[in-house]
Amino acid sequence: METIGFIGLGIMGRPMALNLLKAGYPLVVHNRSQGAVKELVNAGATAADNPAAVAKQVDILITMLPDTPDVDQVLLGSGQAIKNLRPGTLVIDMSTVSPAIARRVASAAREVGADALDAPVSGGDVGAQEGTLSIMVGGSKEAFERALPIFKVLGKNITLVGEAGAGQVAKAANQVIVGVTIQAVAEALTLAKRNGVDPAMVHQALMGGFAQSKILEIHGQRMLDNNHKPGFKSRLHRKDLSIALEAAREVGLPLPCTGMVRELFSALVGQEQGDADHSALVKILENLSSPNN
Amino acid sequence: METIGFIGLGIMGRPMALNLLKAGYPLVVHNRSQGAVKELVNAGATAADNPAAVAKQVDILITMLPDTPDVDQVLLGSGQAIKNLRPGTLVIDMSTVSPAIARRVASAAREVGADALDAPVSGGDVGAQEGTLSIMVGGSKEAFERALPIFKVLGKNITLVGEAGAGQVAKAANQVIVGVTIQAVAEALTLAKRNGVDPAMVHQALMGGFAQSKILEIHGQRMLDNNHKPGFKSRLHRKDLSIALEAAREVGLPLPCTGMVRELFSALVGQEQGDADHSALVKILENLSSPNN
Repeated sequence: METIGFIGLGIMGRPMALNLLKAGYPLVVHNRSQGAVKELVNAGATAADNPAAVAKQVDILITMLPDTPDVDQVLLGSGQAIKNLRPGTLVIDMSTVSPAIARRVASAAREVGADALDAPVSGGDVGAQEGTLSIMVGGSKEAFERALPIFKVLGKNITLVGEAGAGQVAKAANQVIVGVTIQAVAEALTLAKRNGVDPAMVHQALMGGFAQSKILEIHGQRMLDNNHKPGFKSRLHRKDLSIALEAAREVGLPLPCTGMVRELFSALVGQEQGDADHSALVKILENLSSPNN
Repeated sequence: METIGFIGLGIMGRPMALNLLKAGYPLVVHNRSQGAVKELVNAGATAADNPAAVAKQVDILITMLPDTPDVDQVLLGSGQAIKNLRPGTLVIDMSTVSPAIARRVASAAREVGADALDAPVSGGDVGAQEGTLSIMVGGSKEAFERALPIFKVLGKNITLVGEAGAGQVAKAANQVIVGVTIQAVAEALTLAKRNGVDPAMVHQALMGGFAQSKILEIHGQRMLDNNHKPGFKSRLHRKDLSIALEAAREVGLPLPCTGMVRELFSALVGQEQGDADHSALVKILENLSSPNN
């Protein structure tokens, strides 16, 4: 089995790395905070002091980092991971970052004789723990097939979407639909509530028709229960919509509802609700309207 | 069996009336244009010259009209249908109109000793033909139970949502979710296309995850096929979002994405695409952005 390096052991990365260990892969890990490193080492992984040290000793290098600047720093910048790859290594960035940096990583990898995939996921920490993530992949068919056994340990719904960056574009599209649909459900249920109609009855009436979606079912129920424990945090969804808007801006495409929802997520962050579940978008509407009407 | 009056034999009303005839109900019909009247009379219905003449001879009066002013005119205004009801008659308005007029109709019906339900539908002309409409009902439990055998001829997913007007509020909420979700899918697929990624691959990758919805499946496919035959016409969806925005305005509630999508439907109508399917929202985005980027 190929030796895997894993950089980024956060809410998502930690359970993913554990699943790879359980599947029998030799694992070299690195993370800024040491708690997760100790847990992985106890489970059988080797620790490395920095990204370059990981890069030097693995066949496959996986990164699962919070944001575009982190991937930039670890792979291309001061972390120098790509510079230290052995030829033939495959880099798989599973972070949700800009399509632009995915293309830069692929190009930098090619220069040192390595290969790269962008492979962002959806499905949250529960999907990471249970190995049921959806994985959207950009890169060559050869690299995809080499990575497929690893992807099958981590996820269920695995799609090669296109060339380098295409995985990130698909993830951005996913986050656009999820975010805007949450806002649609928030507007619909608040409209009912403020008009004196039980939103739970409206939710039930709508689930059988064209308005049906996983978001109406799950996030609609969270709104009815006034339960906004994450789930997926508003500030992370704001980040993901910013990635989508930047990718759209680069090609001269306006995304009016995506832009609106990004700003509403900013209102949540501004009201110190950035750690609330993205279904908390409904709170903004409730705060904007008069409860006495 | 109770005698049913049916006013409004358009794309929706004509097949609904035919289904009631087939189920054995004695039917008295009225419509402005006479083609549909002749068809119904040939199938066994009786024709009446005006709304008042229908009202005088039926136990249940169903209206299926294009817009709020039509319902106002036929039931409350010069049509004088409600004034001519016999006590004990049940009025069922199945048009999609404002919650406010549903409440006025219910109140006018009470004054002449009649009862009323607002019972707008979703499911389109196919649902009307096949008797599989979703029906969202506002009014009393007694009136709902009296109407239920009729609703079961016309539809499948039948919900008593609340008091008078609640059916229209639920329908408005439905149209908010459907319209805004179509725009979400349009933004996501156009983002992919303009970034050089095959939108059909993105559509496929997203169908298994949280972005899944009937709209992504069906309207997303129409966008990929560049097929905008209705379906449901953009100008009618614009009307329905205007009803939602008016109901929101009355209670001091802003609906930012609904407002945005209503304006985008106005752009479609302005570009003489008002008769195109609501999935044609994607054309506005394509027209707004440069195809060469």
